Amino acid sequence: MSPKITTELLKQLRQVMKNPKFVQEPVQAYIVPSGDAHQSEYIAPCDCRRAFISGFDGSAGTAIVTEQHAAMWTDGRYFLQAAHQMDNNWTLMKMGLKDTPTQEDWLVSVLPEGSKVGVDPFIIPADQWKRMSKALRSAGHDLVPVKENLIDTIWTDCPQRPCKPLITLDLSYTGVSWRDKIVALRSKMAERKVMWFVVTALDEVAWLFNLRGSDVEYNPVFFAYAVIGMNTIRLFIDGDRMMDPSVREHLQLDSTLEPEFKIQVMPYGSILSELQAVGAGLSSKEKVWLSDKASYALTEAIPKAYRYLTPYTPICIAKAVKNTAETEGMRRAHIKDAVALCELFNWLEKEVPKGTVTEIIAADKAEEFRSQQKDFVELSFATISSTGPNGAIIHYKPVPETNRTLSVNEIYLLDSGAQYKDGTTDVTRTMHFGTPSAYEKECFTYVLKGHIAVSAAIFPNGTKGHLLDSFARSALWDCGLDYLHGTGHGVGSFLNVHEGPCGISYKTFADEPLEAGMIVSDEPGYYEDGSFGIRIENVVLVIPAETKYNFKNRGSLTFEPLTLVPIQTKMIDVNLLTEKECNWVNEYHQKCREVVGAELERQGRHEALRWLLRETEPLARVQ
Amino acid sequence: MSPKITTELLKQLRQVMKNPKFVQEPVQAYIVPSGDAHQSEYIAPCDCRRAFISGFDGSAGTAIVTEQHAAMWTDGRYFLQAAHQMDNNWTLMKMGLKDTPTQEDWLVSVLPEGSKVGVDPFIIPADQWKRMSKALRSAGHDLVPVKENLIDTIWTDCPQRPCKPLITLDLSYTGVSWRDKIVALRSKMAERKVMWFVVTALDEVAWLFNLRGSDVEYNPVFFAYAVIGMNTIRLFIDGDRMMDPSVREHLQLDSTLEPEFKIQVMPYGSILSELQAVGAGLSSKEKVWLSDKASYALTEAIPKAYRYLTPYTPICIAKAVKNTAETEGMRRAHIKDAVALCELFNWLEKEVPKGTVTEIIAADKAEEFRSQQKDFVELSFATISSTGPNGAIIHYKPVPETNRTLSVNEIYLLDSGAQYKDGTTDVTRTMHFGTPSAYEKECFTYVLKGHIAVSAAIFPNGTKGHLLDSFARSALWDCGLDYLHGTGHGVGSFLNVHEGPCGISYKTFADEPLEAGMIVSDEPGYYEDGSFGIRIENVVLVIPAETKYNFKNRGSLTFEPLTLVPIQTKMIDVNLLTEKECNWVNEYHQKCREVVGAELERQGRHEALRWLLRETEPLARVQ
Repeated sequence: MSPKITTELLKQLRQVMKNPKFVQEPVQAYIVPSGDAHQSEYIAPCDCRRAFISGFDGSAGTAIVTEQHAAMWTDGRYFLQAAHQMDNNWTLMKMGLKDTPTQEDWLVSVLPEGSKVGVDPFIIPADQWKRMSKALRSAGHDLVPVKENLIDTIWTDCPQRPCKPLITLDLSYTGVSWRDKIVALRSKMAERKVMWFVVTALDEVAWLFNLRGSDVEYNPVFFAYAVIGMNTIRLFIDGDRMMDPSVREHLQLDSTLEPEFKIQVMPYGSILSELQAVGAGLSSKEKVWLSDKASYALTEAIPKAYRYLTPYTPICIAKAVKNTAETEGMRRAHIKDAVALCELFNWLEKEVPKGTVTEIIAADKAEEFRSQQKDFVELSFATISSTGPNGAIIHYKPVPETNRTLSVNEIYLLDSGAQYKDGTTDVTRTMHFGTPSAYEKECFTYVLKGHIAVSAAIFPNGTKGHLLDSFARSALWDCGLDYLHGTGHGVGSFLNVHEGPCGISYKTFADEPLEAGMIVSDEPGYYEDGSFGIRIENVVLVIPAETKYNFKNRGSLTFEPLTLVPIQTKMIDVNLLTEKECNWVNEYHQKCREVVGAELERQGRHEALRWLLRETEPLARVQ
Repeated sequence: MSPKITTELLKQLRQVMKNPKFVQEPVQAYIVPSGDAHQSEYIAPCDCRRAFISGFDGSAGTAIVTEQHAAMWTDGRYFLQAAHQMDNNWTLMKMGLKDTPTQEDWLVSVLPEGSKVGVDPFIIPADQWKRMSKALRSAGHDLVPVKENLIDTIWTDCPQRPCKPLITLDLSYTGVSWRDKIVALRSKMAERKVMWFVVTALDEVAWLFNLRGSDVEYNPVFFAYAVIGMNTIRLFIDGDRMMDPSVREHLQLDSTLEPEFKIQVMPYGSILSELQAVGAGLSSKEKVWLSDKASYALTEAIPKAYRYLTPYTPICIAKAVKNTAETEGMRRAHIKDAVALCELFNWLEKEVPKGTVTEIIAADKAEEFRSQQKDFVELSFATISSTGPNGAIIHYKPVPETNRTLSVNEIYLLDSGAQYKDGTTDVTRTMHFGTPSAYEKECFTYVLKGHIAVSAAIFPNGTKGHLLDSFARSALWDCGLDYLHGTGHGVGSFLNVHEGPCGISYKTFADEPLEAGMIVSDEPGYYEDGSFGIRIENVVLVIPAETKYNFKNRGSLTFEPLTLVPIQTKMIDVNLLTEKECNWVNEYHQKCREVVGAELERQGRHEALRWLLRETEPLARVQ
């Protein structure tokens, strides 16, 4: 992977930063955040402005360009990748390390007195604007909104914004109709005494209307906003997609409805002016509810006194708690996903020793097997297919320049998942197709112990996920090992593979309490730079637990793995497991056998079934 | 314990809330915070305004009185105590429970439109003022500073502010001279480009000047402020204490010193006007560093643009990392403390069966044994001597009305500690003088497992203490049990028994990373309302750990118990311990034997020594 040469682009950007055609006054720095106007994590090609200007295309990162400097902030998952993809014009700012300055501190240290720092007000979330603006102001600088996106002005071959057809989901998938979701939302609005709710996150729009799209790769969402009043519903969306009869029927656009359920369809681009009109017409008791991560532009459309901002919207919280139709769908999706992976691993076991399987071929094969499954839609993220040293690049994606051949001498790490119409999967397995070293087995076993510690944890109802993060690290810590990422993220139901408001991470304290029905990943790892990467990831469902004393009726919770893919026993040093951990592995494998075995049988996949049976033989501890 | 009758007092307070002699405009609510003008946790009798108005005298709580209501916010340690001490005029607001409103939300829900909420600006920390003021303003109310403390106006027999003699500490106790501390502080100030630092916390003033006092019971501090400039030192302190020749010599008040080390002594009451003068004379590049917990009054003395506020001051952080002289002193103090407790428990074992020992007698006896030890100064907090149901009142202090007689049928919990000139102790042991029930042993053993999980934890250098909190709960959680308090707090070195910036709690995310030399408590518990309380507390020192891989040279940390008092083996269900936990107990007891045994021998305390030897017999697990 050779870095993108950005000298000329940076020169052009620095010119438009002073060009009165685009900026009222010259800006001495320009911030290029990661997201789009919806603060999405995964974005459409037309929104990949940070990757365009820097070359770094990981899922998280913020670029800042000044007259003299260009700097990129990203987190531990991407330190190696960013270093590989960026040229010498760029300084990598490793977030989470003690000596790394914040963006604000860095700006203050490099800017000349009284500088202006520009940013696209549609791209920067309001909470970030506030923090950054305050820090800059207290150092004598100004954060200013630059209406025209400056990257777009120099991006001559920028792709078009996608506008693909929609998928409608019926009750068998969603469990709740969009009308009932609107009713529930309005009741939350009434509780907080707000009159309007602005839906800005793409997955929230999709969830609310039981619609899916494919405007953004991997995330089944579509570009749209919605504004929900107590008696009105406005959906801002472009293109012919509202002409589709199944969509019209689904949304009852042509039916005679009570007025409060009548959806007004409006152009996507009219959200700002419509919201400004709403803002201008508010009376003293009318509040408008927005996420504090909504864009600065939309937030400013509502006068400050009328804003009601929360870190998590009522849709985000409702969406996180899956109903029975959704959990059953997630279960089905994970069984199909396991069938595909059993096929893949059986195939790899035969092919890898021939020396013909590259990371890209393996990833493609995984997609091929998945696509054979019912209701498969697309992958849920770019497959991380990595062998040997590439495994240590936490969010690696194989490209021809880095593509390595799998061998019997190196660890292979596969982190992959898919979107099925009934659910979203995300699973990581780490395999060795030859004989792992004692050290590799040792590290794998500590990671497994951490995985089990979270998966089998019992905790009181209402515990926040971040309180479980250290359980995943304890076995690694005991030997002086650790990993530089969180342990888990929320997972959508045929929606984004990363979603809020819950998770398991030492970094997040604003997570909402875990409750039964929430779905998160459990994915501790260990990475040895230049040698190998290990990660074991299941998607797990929060379920009620049985405990002896039940927290004085507060209720007990634990996790049930939805992912049912064997964990390679060859990589386990059984003597490092406790009896309880050993039993956990055996019971997990027994469940894989029964549930996935039955489906393999049903699909007539006998060779993969034999592989599954062999890989799920019980472990035996030496006494 | 009967509640304080507050009907008349509340009537008087509500009158002065409208009296133009004290308030410019009537206030519809008046906030009575817990602290004094230094935001101390433990306060002098003249500052116990919240206890005076409500009757509730726990160490944490905020009272708010409106025209109609009187409400008290406190945390899980004090739910029972507050309920017992307050009459029906008061509503108890249980912090940490899901349905308890915040003070701001509650005020907004009860106040008439456009209300004024008053508070003493010297008592409310600036960060709380800011939060509360913002919340009230956004609901149409105003937080207003009321110069004269309204409680003081109705408190006719308010005691005088204490002004006791000072103790000077030489290098053998402090390890670093006050001059060198000033030099180090100025270098931190230079790093942050601030010209002034305002010392507002009493323990920070005491630590900086290597002085101690006794103005506040249990905390060896004295009422004072300091303002440190790059070339000046101003100490604001009252009374004759600066006439003491040893103090004059210690501070070199009469020596010819370089001007930057010359201490200007000023009246305590002149801090506000002096700080206002500093504030008025600042030029554009001069910043003033204050804790964001400094009082609103002092913070406002510095114009906003010149303030540099941080949650923890450089003194707070430096003070937390004990040097060799301090850790050696802490070790000595804990050995002496253990001698006293061996004597006490040996005595209790003989006396309790006679039915003559009450909670108060036991507490007094503990103090008597401690006072026999060298360099004993006073207790470090009010002894929690509690038996049976009183043990479930987490911060219980026996008083004649509640005083219970220890018996062979109930669990006895003793949480106590002392100030010695060489260190501060804080230890909790839970004992049974008869035969504990299987359930009591079960609960005790889970608490012990949690205690060991923290004490033996290994973690990377720079880990924040709150990440260890769940380790203490895991064994309890597995059975559906929990406790409603944090697991540990920082401990001062012959200073406050609770100090920042580190701790082990699910509630605190603003704690500073743990580093070698820090000292915290490790004190999980379990409380069965109406029946018993269990807590096992050691003070532990953060030390480097040896790990196989040492976190890629980031460094490994663990804890060394400084407290060396036997943990009653009679209360342990050995079969619930792992081999590793069993070994931990045996090694801990072996160390108690060796270290405390030698000191008991040296002091000729042979009976207590025999008790120690018996109580530290190794546990044997049934295989």
